[in-house]
Amino acid sequence: MEHGVQMPSVESEMIIRVPRDALHSFAVNAFCYYGVPDDDARIAADVLLESDLRGIESHGVPRLEQFYLARLRDGRINPTPQIKVLHESPSTALVDADGGLGMVTGFRSMKIAIEKAKVSGTGFVSVTNARHFGIAGYYSSMALEEDMIGIAMCNTSAIMVPTFGRDAKVGTNAFSVAAPSADGRHFILDMATSTVSAGKFEVAARKGQPVPIGWAGDADGVPTTDPSAARDARHYSPLGGAPEMSSHKGYGLGVVVDILCGILSGVGPSAALVSGSGVGHFFGAIRVDGFRDPAEFRAMMTEMMNDLRSTRPADGYERVYVAGDREHQAKEERLRLGIPLYPDVVESIRRVSLELGIESPV
Amino acid sequence: MEHGVQMPSVESEMIIRVPRDALHSFAVNAFCYYGVPDDDARIAADVLLESDLRGIESHGVPRLEQFYLARLRDGRINPTPQIKVLHESPSTALVDADGGLGMVTGFRSMKIAIEKAKVSGTGFVSVTNARHFGIAGYYSSMALEEDMIGIAMCNTSAIMVPTFGRDAKVGTNAFSVAAPSADGRHFILDMATSTVSAGKFEVAARKGQPVPIGWAGDADGVPTTDPSAARDARHYSPLGGAPEMSSHKGYGLGVVVDILCGILSGVGPSAALVSGSGVGHFFGAIRVDGFRDPAEFRAMMTEMMNDLRSTRPADGYERVYVAGDREHQAKEERLRLGIPLYPDVVESIRRVSLELGIESPV
Repeated sequence: MEHGVQMPSVESEMIIRVPRDALHSFAVNAFCYYGVPDDDARIAADVLLESDLRGIESHGVPRLEQFYLARLRDGRINPTPQIKVLHESPSTALVDADGGLGMVTGFRSMKIAIEKAKVSGTGFVSVTNARHFGIAGYYSSMALEEDMIGIAMCNTSAIMVPTFGRDAKVGTNAFSVAAPSADGRHFILDMATSTVSAGKFEVAARKGQPVPIGWAGDADGVPTTDPSAARDARHYSPLGGAPEMSSHKGYGLGVVVDILCGILSGVGPSAALVSGSGVGHFFGAIRVDGFRDPAEFRAMMTEMMNDLRSTRPADGYERVYVAGDREHQAKEERLRLGIPLYPDVVESIRRVSLELGIESPV
Repeated sequence: MEHGVQMPSVESEMIIRVPRDALHSFAVNAFCYYGVPDDDARIAADVLLESDLRGIESHGVPRLEQFYLARLRDGRINPTPQIKVLHESPSTALVDADGGLGMVTGFRSMKIAIEKAKVSGTGFVSVTNARHFGIAGYYSSMALEEDMIGIAMCNTSAIMVPTFGRDAKVGTNAFSVAAPSADGRHFILDMATSTVSAGKFEVAARKGQPVPIGWAGDADGVPTTDPSAARDARHYSPLGGAPEMSSHKGYGLGVVVDILCGILSGVGPSAALVSGSGVGHFFGAIRVDGFRDPAEFRAMMTEMMNDLRSTRPADGYERVYVAGDREHQAKEERLRLGIPLYPDVVESIRRVSLELGIESPV
């Protein structure tokens, strides 16, 4: 979910590219094996594959075996949730996700927000008893084809240290905002409220490279450049990185996500989340025509985004991006050439295929 | 609006403290002198003084003469705006602020959001043809006594440089979220989406101290430690400060504010704002009881906030704060002891008093 700095290209270690649809079928079959109904399995696979297409590998198929399937197997994820609206108003709802796959209950909860927006102008849904839903940007993007602005958030267990603090108390609590443009290259901000996400420490540790001060603290909360110490301590820094760089803002944003996902839903904020009780989600949909003509809105969006893209680059950089540009680029390329897979992901797919007796796409 | 790092105390240069009510009367009289109706003048003075009480001097009475009164005098602010709802749905409205004082039209627009939330569960208002409204946190806080979560945003002219860029294209676009607690020490996040705001460069320049790399660029967009160069170039860095510290997130957040304030309202994003056409505002109100019992929500808020406050501090720090704590502390102290004023602010007050023939509080 971190895509501001170009990561070392996946190409360098890639052995194969696999077509999106082949991986999608594989994921559907794997979910179905564990009792997920066919329609739900397709939704969950859609979310996973969209993540891979957008180049956010940390949330896609590479996570299928160890995260989603493992939890379906041990009962921490409910394959057949009874999603219930517990309370509602014309533009709001509290939803119980019944421990279902986060991608399925996330999709259905965002649909509720969109339906409410159709009637009332806006719709907001807070979800309790939820499970991790993959990329927040999938759900915010669902609003785009409806001429709506979409919002999606998720809280996580506490792995981020408040400004001036020593211990983790807030999650890396993700949030996303999407808004439609005229040319299909929509604005999609999809970010954790920490400076960087866990995956970057893995990459640095594997390469034996130090990480910048401001990414994380060690076990005592002291800023560290040692990626292994940072990864093991799980003391990530809020966006900003350090007090003098206004990390209180990243910390405050993380708490906002906790309020909307954890407290509004009742499941609890990051520090109160206990294994098995799940997490909270928050979804929002805002009809553009509740304010102005959507075509005019889209045209002005594209004008702004093109102006931002045309910003003269600073020395050492090639161009300026708008949130969503890189994901859009990756998606075009990967739909054409297939999704590149690391060797360990290929192995994981083959293992799942053998164990479950389903066809392997690799 | 930047309060994560303790600024050099105002005490060091303070000559006097003035009671809040005396400054309020002075501000009311000054606004009335320029044709602002009495009720509106009281609202505008309330917002200004709330800023001073919260310790955000950059947005309070120190700004009265050079900013608000100057613009009332030269016609850039309309003292008697006809605020109009141009378009609406049950939970949304587009408002034309008619160039009125931002504090007055902000207050009335947030009231519209709250009234819509009472009926529909949530209310969102985007405002065109607006003027600077002081602290965003005033408007988000208006939701608190209604058992609502409040949101307020404002875009500004382009003074922030997109990640990888050389030129300013986005404003320091502020936004605020407020949520009610059980004990009156509410959560109030009130932040610019830049790393720091303009005031910090002034302070550093006055003291001849370098600023950290990551606060701003020089005229060529190159990161600088020279506070004067930074102040003059107005090339502020997005929250994050540098690409490797995820400044694309602060940049993305700034654009979100532009979308909701500038594009949804039609006034335009930061880079398109021209002097005299004003800025855009965005207000939101979300009823807590659209999701769950407000008393339970408030209790869980206080529990979370106390847990965050109890985080063990890192070496060199005394304690951990939650967004709003410092402002709450400052307000209690300043209501008791009066508002501390710098010598140049006292001079400004005396000058205005003489010019307009209104009583001076100092």
